[in-house]
Amino acid sequence: MSLFTANQRTYNPPSRPIVGICLDGCADEYFDAALARGQMPHLQRLSVSGYRGFARGQMPSFTNVNNASIVTGVPPRIHGIGGNYFYETATGEEVMTNSAKFLRAPTIFPAAQRAGRKVAVVTAKDKLRDIFAAGLIELGGIAFSSERVSQAAINTHGIVNVEAAVGPNPNIYSGEASIYVLKAGVKLIETGQADFLYLSTTDFMQHKFAPEAPEALEFYSALDFQIGQLIILGALVGITADHGMNAKQRPDGSPNVLFLESTLNNEFGPGFRVILPITDPHLIHHGGLGSFAQVHVPASSKLELSQILEFVRQLYGVTEVLDQATAARLMELPPDRMGDFVVCSGRDVVLGRTPEWHDLSVVAEGLRSHGGRYEEMVPFLISEPLNAAYAAKAHGDPRNFDLFDFICNGTNV
Amino acid sequence: MSLFTANQRTYNPPSRPIVGICLDGCADEYFDAALARGQMPHLQRLSVSGYRGFARGQMPSFTNVNNASIVTGVPPRIHGIGGNYFYETATGEEVMTNSAKFLRAPTIFPAAQRAGRKVAVVTAKDKLRDIFAAGLIELGGIAFSSERVSQAAINTHGIVNVEAAVGPNPNIYSGEASIYVLKAGVKLIETGQADFLYLSTTDFMQHKFAPEAPEALEFYSALDFQIGQLIILGALVGITADHGMNAKQRPDGSPNVLFLESTLNNEFGPGFRVILPITDPHLIHHGGLGSFAQVHVPASSKLELSQILEFVRQLYGVTEVLDQATAARLMELPPDRMGDFVVCSGRDVVLGRTPEWHDLSVVAEGLRSHGGRYEEMVPFLISEPLNAAYAAKAHGDPRNFDLFDFICNGTNV
Repeated sequence: MSLFTANQRTYNPPSRPIVGICLDGCADEYFDAALARGQMPHLQRLSVSGYRGFARGQMPSFTNVNNASIVTGVPPRIHGIGGNYFYETATGEEVMTNSAKFLRAPTIFPAAQRAGRKVAVVTAKDKLRDIFAAGLIELGGIAFSSERVSQAAINTHGIVNVEAAVGPNPNIYSGEASIYVLKAGVKLIETGQADFLYLSTTDFMQHKFAPEAPEALEFYSALDFQIGQLIILGALVGITADHGMNAKQRPDGSPNVLFLESTLNNEFGPGFRVILPITDPHLIHHGGLGSFAQVHVPASSKLELSQILEFVRQLYGVTEVLDQATAARLMELPPDRMGDFVVCSGRDVVLGRTPEWHDLSVVAEGLRSHGGRYEEMVPFLISEPLNAAYAAKAHGDPRNFDLFDFICNGTNV
Repeated sequence: MSLFTANQRTYNPPSRPIVGICLDGCADEYFDAALARGQMPHLQRLSVSGYRGFARGQMPSFTNVNNASIVTGVPPRIHGIGGNYFYETATGEEVMTNSAKFLRAPTIFPAAQRAGRKVAVVTAKDKLRDIFAAGLIELGGIAFSSERVSQAAINTHGIVNVEAAVGPNPNIYSGEASIYVLKAGVKLIETGQADFLYLSTTDFMQHKFAPEAPEALEFYSALDFQIGQLIILGALVGITADHGMNAKQRPDGSPNVLFLESTLNNEFGPGFRVILPITDPHLIHHGGLGSFAQVHVPASSKLELSQILEFVRQLYGVTEVLDQATAARLMELPPDRMGDFVVCSGRDVVLGRTPEWHDLSVVAEGLRSHGGRYEEMVPFLISEPLNAAYAAKAHGDPRNFDLFDFICNGTNV
């Protein structure tokens, strides 16, 4: 019995090993394409013997926002991370939210560890490690990234010599960076080092390849093999994604960008600051271009906000424009880490700052990205049948950050 | 060579029979559930040898809106049908858009027939027949519904004795009403009566059964058999949906309704008129409850519209509130057939008028419905590989009303 509570939610995990997986950028189409070609036999069985549906992710549909929501079980209004990147008005600095210092709520992991579980968290991107590890290592838990697996040490990561057990440090710009995360999970269960795991991959492959591309199919086949190993080891597995992924390009393959900061400065005069919360250390994935922006109006501006909002609403490719208060309420975001308003763009459109700000050469071969409403819905799978209460919950509006709730409380295991 | 033009778009169909299918209410999850259980072998092959992805449907995500868009190839701003139902301010009447008289653009069918194709349109719901048949019968085309197949006559439908060929008139409240539509398509091709078909089903089954329900699986298996027959006959087949489908209920199974007209009249005084454009002759499907509303403010009102909009934005379950002009632009709707503003509700929430207006007993066993953004994205499949130009187009923002464009122009057939 390892019942525990975190952020007002109660978790009652079965004694079996449990594994929550966040497949970064995994639009449902990736599963569809691989399943139709027989490349994901374990996922196919899992979806029949367990549950497969959609969950609503957290807006904006970015990595840190959604991973932080999944590991805390609450939205950004409570945990504080509403983007990969924000503008701190107090200091006047643009900062990346790659640190646990931005978290305003504990993750569920220390509580699980205290309840007697052996917790391990493995991420592809090292940028997430510090957030996932908050409060965990000192309790005996494990947290490391495949990106910097060679740096893992007992006092900082709760584990050492991972490369000897799992394999050499993979390149972050590869599918292997993600496969490695799942391989590490298999090894941690096999060796009895962990029985409560969170495995979070990276979306390099999804940014670079469409679902039916041979490279994507091979990648999903390899993911499936590892998912199968986890199930064979007796784990109860739940799978979701942080966000989907869509092509954001014109028919000629060039990126379909609305440079919002340039447009605003041209229209209303200089000083507008457009924050693109997709921004992270991995610009090669997306060139810093996503379908969501926070806009800070210059303090000196004498314009009515409603006038600016109406102007932005009319721009081609813009789908939603919400003032701070409305966006904070509808998207459950922390108002003090937002701009004066937020903007979403369409399924095939990204928002940029200025042409000079972005290095478009990294997306010259095609831009696939996320951040908006069309990447909000994500797959949601549990490897065992749902019990009656959670089957009813699934026929409502399940969220991707209900992942551990469904794994721990949602089956009769 | 049967190249033709309709509504500024050019269609160059191959000489093979071509079939456009609109599977009413077919959220992608229905395919996923049936495919994972091996119940749709033809669709599985089609999705590998051809193309499977998502298309963006037309908002609001209702049947008449989307069917009218698919058969004209243009959005409601041009073809005029922005709901199943609207309030005609000129006459003060609430009217159903079940007649071609509401169409402001021709369908593509007369042009196809004039170009030498043998056009046949089969729909489950008779309410759509008049729209689909506009200008077609007099040119020698065929249009009938499975709902009233026994009434089909040469001078009104272009065909007679359908029951003798296809089977007895099915009940509209059944899966057979939809299967019958596909069976009729198979028969029309087999007998050489048609080589350019549009087959449009009804969503009774999707309103009543979740994707993994045995009834839904059996239904999709039967659909798949008929899709297979079409392909075996040599047809080039394209499949999409008018809208998705989500459970709109509380965990106890009761419908999750926001009674918007009552709420507005309570807050601001009487006279608000809430139009629910899901309303059609088949209330048993959904009780008139969907996730989209047009709101008419009383002419006598002295309130600022912005004040009303802000009030509605704060209501629990509301996700989008747009004034008429903004909604007309973003959703490409005809402004003269709209209210003063539109409201969308969440994935699990429907909008109602007043408790008295709706007979909730018809949805006592569960409410599944549509109309909002969470039913906007729909499956999109073409039975042959896309050519280079359309593969690029598919990696953009393809619309469900591009169906005949993709079928006619999108492959190398």
